[in-house]
This record gives sequence, structure tokens and C-alpha cells, in this order.
Amino acid sequence: MKITILTLFPEMFDGFLHTSIIHRALEKKQVEIEVVNFRDFTLDKHNKVDEYPYGGGQGMVLMCQPIVDAILAYRTENSMVILITPEGKTFQQKIAHELALKEHLIFICGHYEGFDARISRYVDMEISLGDFILTGGEVAVMAISDAVIRLLDGVIKESSHQDESFENQLLEYPQYTRPVDFNGDSVPEVLLSGHHENIRKWRLKQSLKRTLERRPDLLQNKVLSKEEMQLLESIKNEESFDTN
Amino acid sequence: MKITILTLFPEMFDGFLHTSIIHRALEKKQVEIEVVNFRDFTLDKHNKVDEYPYGGGQGMVLMCQPIVDAILAYRTENSMVILITPEGKTFQQKIAHELALKEHLIFICGHYEGFDARISRYVDMEISLGDFILTGGEVAVMAISDAVIRLLDGVIKESSHQDESFENQLLEYPQYTRPVDFNGDSVPEVLLSGHHENIRKWRLKQSLKRTLERRPDLLQNKVLSKEEMQLLESIKNEESFDTN
Repeated sequence: MKITILTLFPEMFDGFLHTSIIHRALEKKQVEIEVVNFRDFTLDKHNKVDEYPYGGGQGMVLMCQPIVDAILAYRTENSMVILITPEGKTFQQKIAHELALKEHLIFICGHYEGFDARISRYVDMEISLGDFILTGGEVAVMAISDAVIRLLDGVIKESSHQDESFENQLLEYPQYTRPVDFNGDSVPEVLLSGHHENIRKWRLKQSLKRTLERRPDLLQNKVLSKEEMQLLESIKNEESFDTN
Repeated sequence: MKITILTLFPEMFDGFLHTSIIHRALEKKQVEIEVVNFRDFTLDKHNKVDEYPYGGGQGMVLMCQPIVDAILAYRTENSMVILITPEGKTFQQKIAHELALKEHLIFICGHYEGFDARISRYVDMEISLGDFILTGGEVAVMAISDAVIRLLDGVIKESSHQDESFENQLLEYPQYTRPVDFNGDSVPEVLLSGHHENIRKWRLKQSLKRTLERRPDLLQNKVLSKEEMQLLESIKNEESFDTN
């Protein structure tokens, strides 16, 4: 996979590209990333990329010309052009899986300000990282790239994905490691029992319980197995018992 | 405000801390950021910070000791300790406003793997950036810090916040700048009219329309003004007319 990032602040990606899993994936050529300053494409003699909005208002607006010319310079028939904007589709694991199948992603990062709305015609998808406002799209592109790259073949162990939050619409169960007692707080006994089936069942129940308590919205869209339904029933019964 | 970031990859923040608005806010002392490697706190003679999970399973789990000792070394009575985890509360603009009122935020970033669940006792809040999986908490901390820092007094112009997406539970209206015609695509005439009241009304209607089309969930929780209700009615009427 190749990722092209169009930004006014290429240096912002330095730490991201040189650390940990992303660095290793680049070294192993599992992904190629190019960071391009779209200011280099402006035809304005003062190198401007933004202008006041028509109709008045706060801030500046990124002009069509430099961004559209940058898109046209890098786009091929296998490219997917993605605009990072709070008005886009909310990013989630399902979209990460979709993007991981593409050959070439082109991300456009704004900064401070909005885009001229006419840029949308040159874009295949608009994505928002979430319901909050960032000073620019750069950090959002790091998050999306990271979520996508770790799904590419060979980047991390396939089996690591199995029990992760959101992969099966449940939050992950609580994990414990050494020591058995930490400041008076002990590891649940079942995890020390060596009884694999009991551990599996305990973990599934904890996953369901956490999801029910913290993210009931995830459960609403999940097709539950018979075992999951029974466990969920028993959690609800325990809880109504607790409050009596 | 002071932000302390506990991480295994301090160098990942280099680009983020030296660019644009965050860089300026640091220079002007509107915020202070310290990045701390919590590996420095391990008591393990091989400098380990993680171990195999009890009960078996994929990957390694971050141990309590180094992280808890790092928290205790930096925490004061004015600190808020925040764990970045997919099992946390989903970050959104309302939480950014809450955090912007605090004196000291301590963020804990995991990497690859999960945390020992007993760390939660030393934490005030667990936050998730969204329903997707990252290789670590670092990029999430950049996003959250960015969203919070730009709300601090003096960092960006107060008036810039007014029309932003999510601030009033509406997506922002489309913006346009020069030229009037870009490859045959023109700026809506009302924006060139100079008629402030018509422009305001057009923008509000476009905001409502975009939100209705793309994020109807935001409208469900919004208390609408009389004007907004009337505009929404007229949008719905236009649409049913379009489809006949």
C-alpha cells in the first residue's frame, strides 16, 4: 500500500514515521508513505494557499487550486482521495478495514481553517476522526494511517487482532499480569487456575459486562450467540440482585 | 495548564510539539508539556515494563509498577490522570471543554498491548479516541491535547470557535473563497450579495441541511430555535418535492 499525505506541515509527521510499528512497516516496505507540501502547488506569486471567505466570517479558507492540482499530480486510477474534515463520516474500525484493501490512499489535511467546498468534487470520501475540533488534519491522518497500517498483512501478528475491542463489537476483557498481588489488589483466581474453558468463559462474560456498562450502544448492533445471550442474562440478574 | 505525557516513545511527539499552534502556545507559555518515558520508573533489572498475561492470550500486558510509580511521581492534588484505552469514554468536544478547565493533565499511553486492569485504580478518567484500534495511545494524546489546547485562553481567536462543527451540535456550513468560478463550479450567489441577513440565514440552512443528511444523530439531541425548526421544515419539504 502507498499513502500520500498532502499537508502544509510535513515536519509534523517526523516522529510518527520514525517510531515503532510504523517505522518497522516502512523499513520492511509493507507500506510506502510520501508527505507532500501542497503549498508547492500554488500558482499565487506570494505562495498563498488561503483567502478570506466569500460572505464574510472568521478565519481563512483553503483555496481549490493548490489542493486540486496536488491531487491531480498524485492521483492514479487506483487512488482513493480522502478529505479530513469534521463534516465527514466518523472514522471507525469498519472503515479502517475498508481502507486497508486499497492500493493507494491520498489524504488531504487542512489546518486552522476550512476548505473551499468545491474541493469535494475531487474527493472520494470525507472522514472525520470524531466529534471534536483539531487545529489541523495532520493528527487525524496519523490516527487513520496507524489504524489502517496495523491491519496490513504481516505488520502485526494476525492472531493479535482477535480479541481486540470493536473487532467483534465488544470491549476487550480486563487483562492482568505479574505480580499476583499489587498493593493489595489481586488477580482474579480463575486466571491462575489453568482451566482454559473457565478462563474463556470468564473473559467473554467480562467483555459483555464492560460493554453493557460502558458502551451499551455497541451491543444494540451486535448479533449475539446463544452463549453470549445466556451470559448477558446472568449479568443482568446479578446486577438486579446487587441493587436489592 | 500543564500536560504530562507518560509514554514508551517520547520521540513520537517531536513533530507535534514543534509545529504550528501547539508550538506557538508552548512559546507563549499558554501551556507547558512534559513528555516522560515511564520505562525510567521500572524496578525490573532488565528494564522490562510488560509481561505475559495471566490466563494466556496474545501479546504482552503493561505492568502496574512502572506506570503507577510514574503517576505517583508527577501527580499533585490538582492533577487529573487520564488513561488512553479503547475501553474508555469516547472523546468529544464536550470532554475537550471539561479538560480545558483543569490545571494539570497526566496522560498515560499504552503501546501494542493492554494495561494491567489494576492500573485503573490510580486513574481519574479513561478516554478512547473512537471506535478503532491504534498501535498506541500516543496519537490519541496528540489529538486530545490539540483539541484542548486550542480552547485555552488566547491560543486562537475566541470568535473562531463560534461557527465550528459540534460547538452548537450542527456541522459547519460550506465555505467558499476566490475565485468565483473554479473549473465551471461557481460560488453561490447569495455569498456575493453583501446582504448580511440573507447570508446568515443561508448558512444556517446549509448547516442544518448538512447535519440532517450526514449526521442526523446530532440533531436528535439538539434544542432547536424557532428559526431552526422552520428552516428544517422547509428543507424536508424541498427534499420530498425533489424525489417526486
